[in-house]
Amino acid sequence: MISEKMSKLLERSAAMSSMYTESARLKEKYGAENVYDFGMGNPNLPAPDSIRETSIRVLQETDPWYLHHYMPNNGFPEAREKIAASLNRRFGEHFDANNIMMCTGAAGGLNCLLKVLMDPGQEILTFAPYFGEYDRYADNVGCTLTTVPPNIPTFQPDPAALEKCVTEKTRAVLIDNPNNPTGVVYNEETIRAIAAVLAKKEQEYGHAIYLISDEPYRELVFDGASVPWIPNDYKNTIVAYSFSKSLSLPGDRIGYLALRSEVEDFENIVAAVAVATRITGFINASGLQQLVCAKCCDETVDISFYDKNRKRLYDALTAYGYEMPKPEGAFYLFMKTPTENDLEFVEKIKEHRILLTPGSGFGCPGYVRIAYCVAPETIEGALPGFKAMMEYYKNK
Amino acid sequence: MISEKMSKLLERSAAMSSMYTESARLKEKYGAENVYDFGMGNPNLPAPDSIRETSIRVLQETDPWYLHHYMPNNGFPEAREKIAASLNRRFGEHFDANNIMMCTGAAGGLNCLLKVLMDPGQEILTFAPYFGEYDRYADNVGCTLTTVPPNIPTFQPDPAALEKCVTEKTRAVLIDNPNNPTGVVYNEETIRAIAAVLAKKEQEYGHAIYLISDEPYRELVFDGASVPWIPNDYKNTIVAYSFSKSLSLPGDRIGYLALRSEVEDFENIVAAVAVATRITGFINASGLQQLVCAKCCDETVDISFYDKNRKRLYDALTAYGYEMPKPEGAFYLFMKTPTENDLEFVEKIKEHRILLTPGSGFGCPGYVRIAYCVAPETIEGALPGFKAMMEYYKNK
Repeated sequence: MISEKMSKLLERSAAMSSMYTESARLKEKYGAENVYDFGMGNPNLPAPDSIRETSIRVLQETDPWYLHHYMPNNGFPEAREKIAASLNRRFGEHFDANNIMMCTGAAGGLNCLLKVLMDPGQEILTFAPYFGEYDRYADNVGCTLTTVPPNIPTFQPDPAALEKCVTEKTRAVLIDNPNNPTGVVYNEETIRAIAAVLAKKEQEYGHAIYLISDEPYRELVFDGASVPWIPNDYKNTIVAYSFSKSLSLPGDRIGYLALRSEVEDFENIVAAVAVATRITGFINASGLQQLVCAKCCDETVDISFYDKNRKRLYDALTAYGYEMPKPEGAFYLFMKTPTENDLEFVEKIKEHRILLTPGSGFGCPGYVRIAYCVAPETIEGALPGFKAMMEYYKNK
Repeated sequence: MISEKMSKLLERSAAMSSMYTESARLKEKYGAENVYDFGMGNPNLPAPDSIRETSIRVLQETDPWYLHHYMPNNGFPEAREKIAASLNRRFGEHFDANNIMMCTGAAGGLNCLLKVLMDPGQEILTFAPYFGEYDRYADNVGCTLTTVPPNIPTFQPDPAALEKCVTEKTRAVLIDNPNNPTGVVYNEETIRAIAAVLAKKEQEYGHAIYLISDEPYRELVFDGASVPWIPNDYKNTIVAYSFSKSLSLPGDRIGYLALRSEVEDFENIVAAVAVATRITGFINASGLQQLVCAKCCDETVDISFYDKNRKRLYDALTAYGYEMPKPEGAFYLFMKTPTENDLEFVEKIKEHRILLTPGSGFGCPGYVRIAYCVAPETIEGALPGFKAMMEYYKNK
């Protein structure tokens, strides 16, 4: 008696749930230390101590009525001001509180934003491979998600391929940079080329095409890579940010949307995000988390921890003969499977008690995602299994 | 360039925003103490001290990884268990963690639940007057909200009127008990009669009709009234609860859904709420708030504070000649306006620096909602204005 629509989603979701169940089953059977779970992007670093300290201080020093009560739907002005000031320092912006909207994680912010920008029947574009939930976010507002085919092997989006996909119905392009699942940072050249295509199409169709940049991994970059600040390259950019990864707070659900006042229909967007936040049931991002993250927004967890994992895993896997782009960001490797059937590979490697996510779930079969936000021992324990799998396929 | 759909909502919302602006304008002009704002249901009591103390203790004693990281979408099992145990003690339930799903306030829970139960084109029923956002929640899932006409003057829902409104497309009936905006507690007799109608219609149409009871005001009852525990009366009941009012935590966004294992399609509902929570962007209710509210779930703010406001205001207003049901719950009075045009009354009474919400916004013109979750001085200051307004209309 649940809805037909949800029944179908539940079936699909069963695959993901079974991965958790499988992980738990294997851990029970072989001991947790003998199971190598690279399935989920749940950061294994704890939040910095400053989160605990700041939370306690805010609780002690803030009037409880102010702290816990209804506030403007877009968040406490003081939190928005602090984040605006941080972005001004970092990216030379001229933001004030009005340019920032606190949201319930980037996922909450994206859903409210799509509600604001999209009418049913319109199209959102993204580049494969992409974060699998984008399909659902599009469906939530009655829209379709059209995917630009993956640009193998670099996974830098291909602007020419984008140009072919934009239609009159395209109102938003949604990117995730650094990318989940590839770990690739869309570089300045790519972003400028995307911007040129979109500006041309805006002209052609006579309406704005918003570039929504989902940036929960913005701080997680390596080898001196830098994530382009897209408002510099494209006028109608809206940035969605989450503190889930930079501060290891995914369970807190806190982030923000940021946009310049020059973005087309800026005032209506800001007002409408407040309405969308209310009518979708978010109402506002949790007050305490807003104040805490605003105070800690210039901090991050120890990124070098992920970098060590990245190097160790990348070097070992490529030495075994696996192919993948060297990731410069996030905490994922996107590895080509030695068989075209990534689902088969994911099943087969379970014999070595290694859990991975098939690329099919990200719109890119023939690859697997390896989430390396894990203990170094997990990597060391898993390497013989990865090696054995490559040998198996070579000799098959 | 925001969507057409949102443009229309923004216009409607402008009326509400202008109320806040108006309040701010009047306060600036006359001084905050001379403006009597009964517009919004923002509890004026602060959260109990135990919220601060428990929050600090949880932050100090909980492993930060556990506290801040991804958890099951339906919440921490330990939080769900504690709330289950509380409901077992209070209502003789036999719940365990599986019967409870933590959600981002009742508004978040309702939106996820409707996503689970409703297919586009189906109908949700509610009784006027009703919480105005229900229209939007229905629209979010492509459904219509059909309202059963108000049963004036008691505002106890009329089961016979309900029976006429149920159709084959009705999959859910959504009630708010104690009711916002009337403050009326739907009593046991009413609930049983509603249950009888729905059970008959379930039989007739051969599918479940879920009764969703939105109960953020469950603890706010007076004169010894008690809110029926609806799972006792109707099998397919799902309760949505929020700590926003009982613990004065509206800005925290924390609540839960509760249902018996006997509810039709129970296991799929629970699994699908997890999926809905993920795909709508909620992901999970904030972890800290889950643990804190689970520990404090048997506490409330000082309800007698609201009761004093209720009595003072009700007695004075009825003495002036106003008519309204005597509310037994929530913190609202729903007062008949001396003119049929509630919008005109709301405008006119602003001359006395009194701000009210028109009944039209709750599907019941000819009435106004008075939110008495205010300081006693606000009530005292406003009484002469209410009196003058009645005299004005009597002599008109």
